[in-house]
Amino acid sequence: MATTHIVKSYDNDLNRLSYLIQEMGKLADRQLSAAIEAIQSRDNEKAEHTRAGDAVIDALEDELNELTLNILALRQPMASDLRLIIGSMKIARDLERIGDYAANLAKRTRTLNANSPLGLTDQLVHMGGLVQPLLKTALDGFMRQDTALVSDIVGMDDAVDALYKKLINDLMDYMQSNPKDVVACTNLLFMAKNFERIGDRATNIAENVYFIVEGTLPHAMRQKQK
Amino acid sequence: MATTHIVKSYDNDLNRLSYLIQEMGKLADRQLSAAIEAIQSRDNEKAEHTRAGDAVIDALEDELNELTLNILALRQPMASDLRLIIGSMKIARDLERIGDYAANLAKRTRTLNANSPLGLTDQLVHMGGLVQPLLKTALDGFMRQDTALVSDIVGMDDAVDALYKKLINDLMDYMQSNPKDVVACTNLLFMAKNFERIGDRATNIAENVYFIVEGTLPHAMRQKQK
Repeated sequence: MATTHIVKSYDNDLNRLSYLIQEMGKLADRQLSAAIEAIQSRDNEKAEHTRAGDAVIDALEDELNELTLNILALRQPMASDLRLIIGSMKIARDLERIGDYAANLAKRTRTLNANSPLGLTDQLVHMGGLVQPLLKTALDGFMRQDTALVSDIVGMDDAVDALYKKLINDLMDYMQSNPKDVVACTNLLFMAKNFERIGDRATNIAENVYFIVEGTLPHAMRQKQK
Repeated sequence: MATTHIVKSYDNDLNRLSYLIQEMGKLADRQLSAAIEAIQSRDNEKAEHTRAGDAVIDALEDELNELTLNILALRQPMASDLRLIIGSMKIARDLERIGDYAANLAKRTRTLNANSPLGLTDQLVHMGGLVQPLLKTALDGFMRQDTALVSDIVGMDDAVDALYKKLINDLMDYMQSNPKDVVACTNLLFMAKNFERIGDRATNIAENVYFIVEGTLPHAMRQKQK
């Protein structure tokens, strides 16, 4: 029957959409782990590998964008399906950017060496450790379409922001007393910024999960990005 | 006649969409000008005013997102209309973020004072002067649906990136010789990063104009964001 076939293929499209988000999420999470490990171990080879993986996320985003356009043009989705499609497109963008931030973190790892300030590098690794569960929680929220999970994210991101501010201040203090380490510290500054932005992007993802489920944006999550 | 009415109101929706992008674009451009002037004159009052204007852009993005959902649900747009709607949603996101970057630039202006390194601040202002035509060209490309204009943008963004790299290197050199100016220079680092990101966002806008007109993404514009 043609109708069943059409409906079935529509379901397949929506399943594929969710699958692509999950795959992108897994890859972004893996890139982030690898970047954190590369910082911790100052392993340039791992860092190079992390950067290469970024292209796969980009390709998945391209596929997702094409798929969403096709669904919109051919299926004329309504209500919650429409929100899933629009929300997924936005989440894919955030995941693609998280992949970019992880690649940039890996790239900057090469500038760290045995002389880089150890305590500050440890703080950066700690910051990465706070960001990672934020991304996992947001992705879990998407998988389970769970808005309760998602509301934890604002508090988690506040902790990331607090550590970010502390680390920037510590880095400025350190550079004032150790001007020979300015280059390493400048890289640490931008690496801290990358983690902070990953936290904001994970918060965006949570915001879009809420939108997909509820049809509105959660008020508490607005105005996070200044 | 009901049909005419429906068609007319559909046209009104699409016109409203373009109008919202234009308004957001004008405001983002104004915010960017004001931020550059505030840096140049170290005028804290102007900086404060710039930050306040950001809320208007956010509100316009909310309206645009709601409008696009309504059009998608009620009008079932096809082909170029569908691309205009999806493309506009992405452009609105970029403009909203450009507003955020301008607000952050204004906020950091407060940390500059008479003792801040003048030559480096001048370089930053110069960088702002390169970024602004990039945004104007992208917006002009949207208004005229002109992909020829838009292809200039890649070259313009390369010039921004080159100046960005030079400025970061100059700032690191300066901090090494003048550790007492580390705080001001760190703010200049992040301000340079903000301009660099505005350039990337303007490039994204151009990319989406190309997509709206041609239905594909321009190859040369990919891979700009690492």
